[in-house]
Amino acid sequence: MQIRPLEWRNNHLLMLDQRLLPQREDWVELRTWQEVASAIRDMIIRGAPAIGVAAAYGMVLAAQSDEFEKGAAGLAASRPTAVNLFWAINRITALQDRSPQGVLAEAQRIEAEDSAMNDRIGEFGSGLIPAGAGVLTICNTGSLATIGRGTALGIIRTAYEMGKVREVFACETRPRLQGLRLTAWELSKSEIPFRMIPDSAAASLMAQGKIDVVVAGADRITQNGDSANKIGTYSLACLAKMHEVPFVIAAPSSTVDLEMATGADIPIEERESSEITHIEGTPIAPAGIRVWNPAFDVTPAHLISAIVTEAGVFRYPYDFR
Amino acid sequence: MQIRPLEWRNNHLLMLDQRLLPQREDWVELRTWQEVASAIRDMIIRGAPAIGVAAAYGMVLAAQSDEFEKGAAGLAASRPTAVNLFWAINRITALQDRSPQGVLAEAQRIEAEDSAMNDRIGEFGSGLIPAGAGVLTICNTGSLATIGRGTALGIIRTAYEMGKVREVFACETRPRLQGLRLTAWELSKSEIPFRMIPDSAAASLMAQGKIDVVVAGADRITQNGDSANKIGTYSLACLAKMHEVPFVIAAPSSTVDLEMATGADIPIEERESSEITHIEGTPIAPAGIRVWNPAFDVTPAHLISAIVTEAGVFRYPYDFR
Repeated sequence: MQIRPLEWRNNHLLMLDQRLLPQREDWVELRTWQEVASAIRDMIIRGAPAIGVAAAYGMVLAAQSDEFEKGAAGLAASRPTAVNLFWAINRITALQDRSPQGVLAEAQRIEAEDSAMNDRIGEFGSGLIPAGAGVLTICNTGSLATIGRGTALGIIRTAYEMGKVREVFACETRPRLQGLRLTAWELSKSEIPFRMIPDSAAASLMAQGKIDVVVAGADRITQNGDSANKIGTYSLACLAKMHEVPFVIAAPSSTVDLEMATGADIPIEERESSEITHIEGTPIAPAGIRVWNPAFDVTPAHLISAIVTEAGVFRYPYDFR
Repeated sequence: MQIRPLEWRNNHLLMLDQRLLPQREDWVELRTWQEVASAIRDMIIRGAPAIGVAAAYGMVLAAQSDEFEKGAAGLAASRPTAVNLFWAINRITALQDRSPQGVLAEAQRIEAEDSAMNDRIGEFGSGLIPAGAGVLTICNTGSLATIGRGTALGIIRTAYEMGKVREVFACETRPRLQGLRLTAWELSKSEIPFRMIPDSAAASLMAQGKIDVVVAGADRITQNGDSANKIGTYSLACLAKMHEVPFVIAAPSSTVDLEMATGADIPIEERESSEITHIEGTPIAPAGIRVWNPAFDVTPAHLISAIVTEAGVFRYPYDFR
């Protein structure tokens, strides 16, 4: 079964509401760029590459309603950390032909390219997975986060098809539980053996020798290789270092922000406290408490064994040019 | 306000149902040792010192129904990791006077001693908290986990009263969220400024220099200082080491198991998958997935800067005799 996070349909965008997975598979119809911006902000869609493709189709809707500049600004303001969003909007705004047809053609190219890049990432990255590997991953970096087989999860799929993966351990990924909801949903539809763990159990797994490699995605990679990704990724990188486990980042080159020197400059989105204090609308904490809820953290380049893009496998010290 | 996890009332035990906090403060009446064993197993009460006191009162109920030996065996089988459970039962079974009155007097001594030990732990441990400290803790080690001010949280309270604590960061502590439910509830009733974090955000906080010391409890400490505690504690100890943050364990000496040489021998309880896949009875994951859900992990002694008991501050290499 082919999992897809979105689909262009004649003159509007269909988007799978990932907030309702795995309990419900609801598709929402988006007919304005404002609706696409809200969908990105509210995390109906998430995952850096998927956000980029969604923004490109949002620009088609902006072109259709003759709000090209407004749409570009509004979509860019939807989420701050994933650079793929700005990269996709920049590709569209750089077009000579800003007609709806011209923008649609470019959005479709971006979509098709993402799928092809995933395949390449899977091929390059699977070379980093040892035979019989226990693989640890975090968040969702599969077909819901991209177009195609995914980035980190794409590597895991490819390595599994090559017979290299013994078992996948996936962090549930609080607060929004993209691991427990989305990665578990995707892996349930595959043959890949997997177990979900609380995020805090990763260290114990490593101490028991059950993890041979950690593979994670990225929302923005700076010139020097510092990588922003889902909160908890930096924690896994530290633990991997202490337990001498290779730590691999996978992302299309559209995630590399060559304009930014180091991770210290990456804006880190802080989200509302209810993501932590409530689950499915039910309060689970005392009312009115304060939380610290950053959506991402930054892993310094020196903790990353390799960064895999569709262009190949990069090693520290990183140079993507 | 004095928070207490249990209270002996004439001929039965009242226990605060911690599974319902912070939404509801329900007290359950326990009239048989079997009900006490179930309450421990089902985590109506939790926290190693509180479990010990509960088991002692369970033995009073066993003595009342003339099932002393059966009660001792049944209570000992309720949970495997916290050694305080076995320590309390051993104290009761060593009594000359096994009459209900004799057992009750010993249970009340165990209860009173725990409170006094917490005070001493707070005094000794507060000496390890630097002025203006950002303190990180995990799980619940306060008045709900003990009798009195708590172990790790007792140190934090005492240090706060001395004006040393700038802010407490508390891990929400998946899967059962004892941090988000119980520690947040206790701290909400105090003046201590605190923020809750997802467990996976601890590394980021340390990287930002916001944590000056980590303080955690323990469920069993072996001869050499290896310490079992809530899953995620070992992760914090690794991260503290990497970020050069002191990592302190606090527990009454009843948590020290001098019969056990190292942490490799500590039985680690694995709990049911629904603790991860469901919240408040609501499924949040795909049906039928596999999880790995160990309730505890073991932190090796060399990662622990100090172990605080009511007898003082111990340092590596540990010798508790």
